[in-house]
Amino acid sequence: MTRTYTIDSIPGDGIGVDVTEVAMGCVDAVAGLHGFTVNWRVRDWNSDLYLKTGRMMPVDGIEQLGSGDGIYLGAVGTPDVPDDVTLWGLLIPIRREFDQYVNLRPMKLLPGVKGAMPGLEDLDIVVVRENVEGEYSQIGGRFGAGTDAEFAVQESVFTKAGISRVARYAAEAATKRGGILVSATKSNGIIHTMPFWDEVVARTVEQFPGVTVDKVLIDALAARLVMKPTSVRTIVASNLFGDILSDLVAGVAGSIGIAPSANLNPERRHPSMFEPVHGSAPDIAGKGIANPVGALWAAAMMLDHLGEAAAAQSLTGAFESALADGIATPDLGGSATTLEFAQEVRARLG
Amino acid sequence: MTRTYTIDSIPGDGIGVDVTEVAMGCVDAVAGLHGFTVNWRVRDWNSDLYLKTGRMMPVDGIEQLGSGDGIYLGAVGTPDVPDDVTLWGLLIPIRREFDQYVNLRPMKLLPGVKGAMPGLEDLDIVVVRENVEGEYSQIGGRFGAGTDAEFAVQESVFTKAGISRVARYAAEAATKRGGILVSATKSNGIIHTMPFWDEVVARTVEQFPGVTVDKVLIDALAARLVMKPTSVRTIVASNLFGDILSDLVAGVAGSIGIAPSANLNPERRHPSMFEPVHGSAPDIAGKGIANPVGALWAAAMMLDHLGEAAAAQSLTGAFESALADGIATPDLGGSATTLEFAQEVRARLG
Ligand SMILES: CC(C)[C@H](C(=O)O)[C@@H](O)C(=O)O
Ligand SMILES: CC(C)[C@H](C(=O)O)[C@@H](O)C(=O)O
Repeated sequence: MTRTYTIDSIPGDGIGVDVTEVAMGCVDAVAGLHGFTVNWRVRDWNSDLYLKTGRMMPVDGIEQLGSGDGIYLGAVGTPDVPDDVTLWGLLIPIRREFDQYVNLRPMKLLPGVKGAMPGLEDLDIVVVRENVEGEYSQIGGRFGAGTDAEFAVQESVFTKAGISRVARYAAEAATKRGGILVSATKSNGIIHTMPFWDEVVARTVEQFPGVTVDKVLIDALAARLVMKPTSVRTIVASNLFGDILSDLVAGVAGSIGIAPSANLNPERRHPSMFEPVHGSAPDIAGKGIANPVGALWAAAMMLDHLGEAAAAQSLTGAFESALADGIATPDLGGSATTLEFAQEVRARLG
Repeated sequence: MTRTYTIDSIPGDGIGVDVTEVAMGCVDAVAGLHGFTVNWRVRDWNSDLYLKTGRMMPVDGIEQLGSGDGIYLGAVGTPDVPDDVTLWGLLIPIRREFDQYVNLRPMKLLPGVKGAMPGLEDLDIVVVRENVEGEYSQIGGRFGAGTDAEFAVQESVFTKAGISRVARYAAEAATKRGGILVSATKSNGIIHTMPFWDEVVARTVEQFPGVTVDKVLIDALAARLVMKPTSVRTIVASNLFGDILSDLVAGVAGSIGIAPSANLNPERRHPSMFEPVHGSAPDIAGKGIANPVGALWAAAMMLDHLGEAAAAQSLTGAFESALADGIATPDLGGSATTLEFAQEVRARLG
């Protein structure tokens, strides 16, 4: 009997297509070596579909995805459609409908990749981002459109259940990572939600004897990640703060193109979603030069989540070894194409 | 006839006291050399006062400040009082009551200061932060306190008038700084206020023929400021984004201790407020080792705003020359005390 996983792949727009295509090939190869198969259901849900049908995905899109074991996303976004339309029509509903409340974003200095500053050998940061509530909400709107008095409001919503479950996940992660959990906050400026965040995080983490909370204001934390990046190991952050911090950390490690993102439903009641952090980069789309490392790393996180830890390690080891041998796409200073890089990865899976 | 300016000095808490004390001395010295005097009204409005009276400032505090020519603030905050109390009881009301809607935060690589990464010689960034609306608001609160269903909401409020006036100020600044205005946004995730921000910024800047808007998502901008900091010159940002970005940029330039902040009412209908970006740092308060550069730079911005440009330049030149000569406080790797550094500045004012 072979193990088979059904994965919905949504290449999306721009380089999302370029990187998922080669990464799926690498996943198939590593699956073959580790005795399982992936049944890919490739979905054409993207901005083209939106321009044709007025929807980023079919009406029953969520239902279709619900029957699979996981979702593998490339990138979404195009200059022809407003970004809030593309994102709130696909990415954000998937995160929410499947209660993918943890967004896990690990980062370290990869071999052969030049970090933004010297001394990053020990860089090893995991951002645990709250992924379904907080600053991203549909509550709000505009008043007096077109008048001089026009204004817009946006409501941030933080629930006790929402904060405590992500804090619990982060505290568990911190247990294995030195015991200090940095909690990103802004309780001195944002007076309703962030003091509440602080309270719930503190009360949740109290239940983890080996873990201490280091509450750091988001402004100070941004500066600290630049000045002392290796002083931070595990971060728990709200939806918006986690978004900003994870890109910042990827910048410190030298590239957004290498960063992976796992949108997890930790209880596995619904499929989780795996994607590179980078966007659709329309300027280089289709040129065959996009960096597939973020997509490959995300694929490795997916394999790990599916219970295929050995295959995940083999995939991670393979792209690290290719990078260590100086093979890299142009954004990292190399001359490999997307496909060539992937071929070198496949050659190193054994 | 001598020119006299009445300045309310609020040393505040912790190292706010240490740095303003020596900086006021430097201001007096440079004033003497440039033929004007400063009439300091030193206010004991701080956390001690709060612990004694339940207020950070007297009931008529704002009225008292209103009669002066400017406000010079050290830092506010102490472990004994929640930060939202200290800040919303003093700093934030001053910004709002005096309609200090522009928060100007310049940064460059100072001589003798080691930046976070190499190649920063050309670093020259001005963050123009919206300072009285946006994400910091008193609208919101908690529901179901103490229950499992407890949640907190916080309303961000962005007005057309509020966005357009700060965009106008920033566009004017950009005119003299290369013509590209980076606008920090998150219109792909925050769907009510940030698309509105984009629209109003675009419409405002259209009126400045020499200025182009470069709309950058806050996450990507954080990464860019780490990877290509010298590619950005002028930023316009909301209250929260400007707060984060200005600390991040100070981190890139090597230290939060050197960063200044001018809270401006550009129409001069009310006094403006000048402060270092750093906090009260209770751990080193009173030890005489706090870095006064942020406070001195803020004082120079104040002199400039008062119309004393020559004195401002003389003060800036003096602390830069001291730094260039290797004189610095311990946080910058030097061994000077706060007072010694200030003495070296005074010796270089001539
Ligand atoms: C203390 C806090 C409310 C304040 C702010 O965020 O405005 C501070 O960080 C600043 O940057 O002046
Ligand atoms: C596209 C955008 C809405 C999204 C987010 O902010 O969540 C992206 O930046 C990410 O980090 O996955």
